[in-house]
Amino acid sequence: MTDEPTAVSAEDRMIARYFRPLAKHPGALGLIDDAALLTAKPGQDIVLTIDAIVGGVHFFWDDAADMVAKKALRVNLSDLAAKGAAPAGFLLALALPETASEAWVEAFARGLGADADTYACPLLGGDSVRTPGPAMISITALGTVPQGSMVTRSGARAGDRIMVTGSIGDAALGLALRKAAGGQPPWQLEEAKRSDLTQRYLLPQPRNALAEAVRLHASAAMDVSDGLVGDLAKLLRASGGTAEIVIDRVPLSDSAKRVLALDPAQIETVLTGGDDYEIVCTIAPDKMVSFQHAAAAAGVPVTEIGRVMAGRQPARFLDRDGKPRLFKQTSFSHF
Amino acid sequence: MTDEPTAVSAEDRMIARYFRPLAKHPGALGLIDDAALLTAKPGQDIVLTIDAIVGGVHFFWDDAADMVAKKALRVNLSDLAAKGAAPAGFLLALALPETASEAWVEAFARGLGADADTYACPLLGGDSVRTPGPAMISITALGTVPQGSMVTRSGARAGDRIMVTGSIGDAALGLALRKAAGGQPPWQLEEAKRSDLTQRYLLPQPRNALAEAVRLHASAAMDVSDGLVGDLAKLLRASGGTAEIVIDRVPLSDSAKRVLALDPAQIETVLTGGDDYEIVCTIAPDKMVSFQHAAAAAGVPVTEIGRVMAGRQPARFLDRDGKPRLFKQTSFSHF
Repeated sequence: MTDEPTAVSAEDRMIARYFRPLAKHPGALGLIDDAALLTAKPGQDIVLTIDAIVGGVHFFWDDAADMVAKKALRVNLSDLAAKGAAPAGFLLALALPETASEAWVEAFARGLGADADTYACPLLGGDSVRTPGPAMISITALGTVPQGSMVTRSGARAGDRIMVTGSIGDAALGLALRKAAGGQPPWQLEEAKRSDLTQRYLLPQPRNALAEAVRLHASAAMDVSDGLVGDLAKLLRASGGTAEIVIDRVPLSDSAKRVLALDPAQIETVLTGGDDYEIVCTIAPDKMVSFQHAAAAAGVPVTEIGRVMAGRQPARFLDRDGKPRLFKQTSFSHF
Repeated sequence: MTDEPTAVSAEDRMIARYFRPLAKHPGALGLIDDAALLTAKPGQDIVLTIDAIVGGVHFFWDDAADMVAKKALRVNLSDLAAKGAAPAGFLLALALPETASEAWVEAFARGLGADADTYACPLLGGDSVRTPGPAMISITALGTVPQGSMVTRSGARAGDRIMVTGSIGDAALGLALRKAAGGQPPWQLEEAKRSDLTQRYLLPQPRNALAEAVRLHASAAMDVSDGLVGDLAKLLRASGGTAEIVIDRVPLSDSAKRVLALDPAQIETVLTGGDDYEIVCTIAPDKMVSFQHAAAAAGVPVTEIGRVMAGRQPARFLDRDGKPRLFKQTSFSHF
């Protein structure tokens, strides 16, 4: 032991300076302990989700650090929303390369803190490590639901309406634009539309405002992170059903519509690309009106795109002429 | 969507094949959902800890995958033990390079499943991602304690005895031996002693058997992961006290004693090196006898190394002649 009474490591200093201010939950114990503490209220279940993002895979090296932090938290918040859960807090494992500057860490913590406040999801605990590879952020988010009310993927029944929030495909088109950055852009888009799409890739807008409506009305739900076609297939496999989807009903932003007008083949990117972070859920016919009212009250657009049917064959996505469309790749996978 | 009814991604296949068998907790929902579910019993608190390990930093590239998996889980189990918590389950984020073979994943899952059974800590959920960097494993472990009984770092009081479990320094000496692998070993040790030390680095032996005794008797506790000197300093800072430690009382294995006989300067490695995964805790004098009985009943050796005193100066580690020893580096840090 040195004679300096405040001998602490660089890691401890970084945590104290940038992350301790985010640990507003009493159970975080100011981040000075080995563990955090969470007391569930009687009659509550804890909902748990973990998602990691890696530099060069899920975000670009030159993305702003505050955006990276927000994306890492929001992909988890999106899972909580789809399960009907209210955020309770999160734990962070942060692996940083030697090259990460203090300014990067400061911006990262600032973005994380802003979203922790916005979504009422405080930092409960964390671990920071060095890596010889790219930055990696692993977040475990915790939420709560009244006991027994978490919405799973497996409750869809024949006759249920299939609803999606917001618009589909923007982030996947935005990723295509980002990949072309500097080179020839794939489509001649107005700057505002290009920015709309790339922003959707950079920063998900999770649908936590809809969580209660999902919990009270949906028979099954999940967030759309790996493409609508593949994710809907997962929900239907878990529920044991099939579906017919009318492609023309899938909600699109004006920016995505413009891309499709220029390049109709991009409908495949729209429907199978990832990173939408919308919710797809199934609603029994007798709950449709109250679900739509609740969604409107929450300010979240919802669109009916098809319905669940009995059967075990894959869902069919129908073109304008009623013919099922075949996709080259049903789902985005990092593997 | 293709016409194949079982169209699933490589990631889904890997999860189904190797990780679903580990998801024995009903709240894991067979790993087919976005989230897991945990219901705390009334009167219980949830204890949460997150720790990540990175290839080339916390384990060697050529460590066996089942050992890597066990280490990743055990460093978290060690935190739960030090807090007096019983394991409830864990979530896994696994980042793998392209080069990771299916055999590696199979062995990783096998090791993880074996320890999940041994420590009654089932897999609740996970995320798997690709990385252009080294493998990284981030685990969030959950435990439970009767409400209000989690042992923190901040409860040590003047007069409390400072106790450590097992033996200190073996893993740090084992790491030194591993680093010399192939080259000239730093010390001429019998093969059995060399193996003892390298095994301690490869595979922590967390003290979960002592968790209940810690919870019932300790005023403060933490696990020793970054070196005894630095970790005890953290505990004392959190509690607001100081201590005198008699270096000769710090428990050593026969293998560590042999190294110190050959190279006395290694006492610095022993006391400030990391990866012990023992518990250091403080026990009020009137609880010493019952703590020692409980530890004996749990089969965990415990040793008194000093006592807590009033004051804010750093703890003093006293040599045989009663002089405080100064260390070059008080604590192991990956930063």
